[in-house]
Amino acid sequence: MSGFVDRDVSVALGELGAVLPPGAVVTDDAAIAARSVDASFIPPDGAAIAVVAPTTTEEVAAVLRTAHRHGVPVVPQGGLTGLAGGASAVEGGILLDLTRMDRVLRVDADDLVAVAQAGVVTEDLANAVAEHGLFYPPDPASWSTSTIGGNVATNAGGMRCVKYGVTRDWVRTLEVVLADGTVVHTRPGTVKAVAGLDLTSLFVGSEGTLGVVTEVTVALRHAPGPSRGVSAGFPTVAAALSAANAIMAARRPSTLELLDAVVVDAVRRLEPDAGLPAGAGAWLLALTDEPVGAADDLAAFSAICRAHGASSLTVADDEAEVDRLLAARRLLNPAMREYRGASLNEDVCVPRSQLPAVLAAIEALSAEIGLPIGTGGHVGDGNLHPVVAYDPDDDAQVAVARGAHERIMALAVAHGGTVSGEHGIGTEKLAALHLELTPHVRALQRSLKSVLDPAGILNPGKKL
Amino acid sequence: MSGFVDRDVSVALGELGAVLPPGAVVTDDAAIAARSVDASFIPPDGAAIAVVAPTTTEEVAAVLRTAHRHGVPVVPQGGLTGLAGGASAVEGGILLDLTRMDRVLRVDADDLVAVAQAGVVTEDLANAVAEHGLFYPPDPASWSTSTIGGNVATNAGGMRCVKYGVTRDWVRTLEVVLADGTVVHTRPGTVKAVAGLDLTSLFVGSEGTLGVVTEVTVALRHAPGPSRGVSAGFPTVAAALSAANAIMAARRPSTLELLDAVVVDAVRRLEPDAGLPAGAGAWLLALTDEPVGAADDLAAFSAICRAHGASSLTVADDEAEVDRLLAARRLLNPAMREYRGASLNEDVCVPRSQLPAVLAAIEALSAEIGLPIGTGGHVGDGNLHPVVAYDPDDDAQVAVARGAHERIMALAVAHGGTVSGEHGIGTEKLAALHLELTPHVRALQRSLKSVLDPAGILNPGKKL
Repeated sequence: MSGFVDRDVSVALGELGAVLPPGAVVTDDAAIAARSVDASFIPPDGAAIAVVAPTTTEEVAAVLRTAHRHGVPVVPQGGLTGLAGGASAVEGGILLDLTRMDRVLRVDADDLVAVAQAGVVTEDLANAVAEHGLFYPPDPASWSTSTIGGNVATNAGGMRCVKYGVTRDWVRTLEVVLADGTVVHTRPGTVKAVAGLDLTSLFVGSEGTLGVVTEVTVALRHAPGPSRGVSAGFPTVAAALSAANAIMAARRPSTLELLDAVVVDAVRRLEPDAGLPAGAGAWLLALTDEPVGAADDLAAFSAICRAHGASSLTVADDEAEVDRLLAARRLLNPAMREYRGASLNEDVCVPRSQLPAVLAAIEALSAEIGLPIGTGGHVGDGNLHPVVAYDPDDDAQVAVARGAHERIMALAVAHGGTVSGEHGIGTEKLAALHLELTPHVRALQRSLKSVLDPAGILNPGKKL
Repeated sequence: MSGFVDRDVSVALGELGAVLPPGAVVTDDAAIAARSVDASFIPPDGAAIAVVAPTTTEEVAAVLRTAHRHGVPVVPQGGLTGLAGGASAVEGGILLDLTRMDRVLRVDADDLVAVAQAGVVTEDLANAVAEHGLFYPPDPASWSTSTIGGNVATNAGGMRCVKYGVTRDWVRTLEVVLADGTVVHTRPGTVKAVAGLDLTSLFVGSEGTLGVVTEVTVALRHAPGPSRGVSAGFPTVAAALSAANAIMAARRPSTLELLDAVVVDAVRRLEPDAGLPAGAGAWLLALTDEPVGAADDLAAFSAICRAHGASSLTVADDEAEVDRLLAARRLLNPAMREYRGASLNEDVCVPRSQLPAVLAAIEALSAEIGLPIGTGGHVGDGNLHPVVAYDPDDDAQVAVARGAHERIMALAVAHGGTVSGEHGIGTEKLAALHLELTPHVRALQRSLKSVLDPAGILNPGKKL
């Protein structure tokens, strides 16, 4: 924090009020409180001093120049849908609300790119390109309220990653405002480019600690066929996993999701008509978006599920039924939160071959601690979301749940995995980073940050 | 270069001789000369002092510890197939020959990854995974002698990028020896991982300036169908480009290559039976690797080419014919080198929509300077390789060719492009970097390098 010149935040806010349009700087407590916590519901470490909502890159640059000069921390924010506390308030900081930068600037069907301001809602971007017959694949569960800038910040995943990859794979180039207010473009918008180091990938997933992304150019594809699929119940998780692995060996599903027995039960309690098979030991959803008639994916999925002992099997070959099943899958978090009153969500990712061992160990852990752990996830990617359910009013359960949370991350790392596949580190997983990264690598990453943010004003205390 | 402690290279070489196996350190002039120039044929800036060829990561670490302590520059090298001087010798430096680290350590058909030492030849890696029914897509033209470590260093492309992306898209994780000899692993081998910053992508394409890659874990796919395709002559480049764009709009070709009239002529002079149509104004090769019967790509390619005025059209539906046509395409550089005795190779990449304007401007430039410029390239990606042919014994032509080289790069940048799509910067394109990167971004990249290489020993004078 050696770069600090002045901590007089009221001077800084006065300067911002003078250069930004009326209404862009808000300091009332309710407005600050409303933007101080993300979807992790983790209480922030400190109290912010203002919400600042620019509408242009130039305004963002003005905010950062002022913040940099006065040493005021800045927390870049999008839809507040993050699950790791990455966008939560920090003491004395500005909450930089980018949701008013919500314009899709260009959709180009020839060059297969779209350019969007950071605050564009992910689903709005997907819809805007769909009007041109185009397709932006990444679909984080929160996409109806998450922003493309937030997706870039966390390198968001989703249910289509198994076929199409994560957000980073679709970011062509970024406009970024650096800590001192300098505006840079990370690379040209071409398909290939190797002049200079890959700054684009460095910013993607950096959770607002290296710069503020203001404009995102994403790559697009032509729209695939409609999603169709197979919904199958299995007597055990092990059987469902063996079917999933067989599907991955034989086909390229566009979605491959699993829910275990605890989640199936929790979802059915919340929403009996969700479409999940009663009493199943596990549920598998395999989708394809290959053109109808071009591939016999549905027949293959069905045959594989039967061969691996499916206890129930339905084919979903219309959009409404597929949407219903995807909605059931998205109930993982809400259903597990309802299950005992509160929950802790994991986001571990392991090599797919390690899933049977990891899921068996999680089941054993649940039995040991006496709390339900429901696991769902993107099994085609080896990305699991085990959710520990507990009673928030029972202090003993709270402590046990937190202990289990740490043990699941350690379990993943012990199986060649990561503590976070797609949610990010934020504040929630900081204490677990040592499980995965050596002290040398962590020091190196902090040194890289200090090149980009010498005064340490960008989302301090997060990610690294 | 402030980190230098000692420049006594004979002491450094003595230390290396003591810790490395016999034969690993070679100082004779012929051996050094043989590894001082890459396939750019650009004379090196200085004379190296030794070739050091380790066989293990530990030996690489020992080399870097010693080099770091004594301030001796280190040039990491693979197959010397680079086209930008990235692996050429530097004054007083060690040529770190990684080609003896040539073992494929693991091929995993369940998790769809392979682990290879940096010196494994790209085609050997592709063959090793093919034995398991698997597929490593990136196929730089030099893949029969390039190494996977060199491909990572340059973020190599190839003819299959249009469908499968570049090397970076297939690198899962890296083992890297840092400048001081510390060995780090950039991330877990999982499909998704967001703990920490993306060091993997930072090292990919950094041309040996940030660390020495010793082990590469690549992602794999199941093998696609055999390559089949359409070879078509067109009266003009404009007609061939409009066919190429129509193919991209309608299908997902696995390869989409164009050669202009100059290259068709040059290739036919070198190899009359290469399969290129005599007198064509342009030649287009469109391949698919979709399973036979699953898609009617060949019929679509043919219909599109005819609709855009193809003057000749043949369907290549067996492997031998496809290989013959790919071999013809790969004659671009050798044929243009023969055409006038010497050549300068470009590697610009522009948005695909800009190709007609850029190719027309290159044709006008050729007419203006009175030297042939033959252009081939990966038109599906907008990546062009214009080659200026000249007589190396005619000083005026040499100067004119160099001037044209610079102007083509400026032309690409003016059309939203880059000075290098896949070859890298090395020493050859350093003078053109200012066309694309602002002084601020260049300074930032040098600062990032200095975090990783504070003494400046890693491939100094290259890339940045």
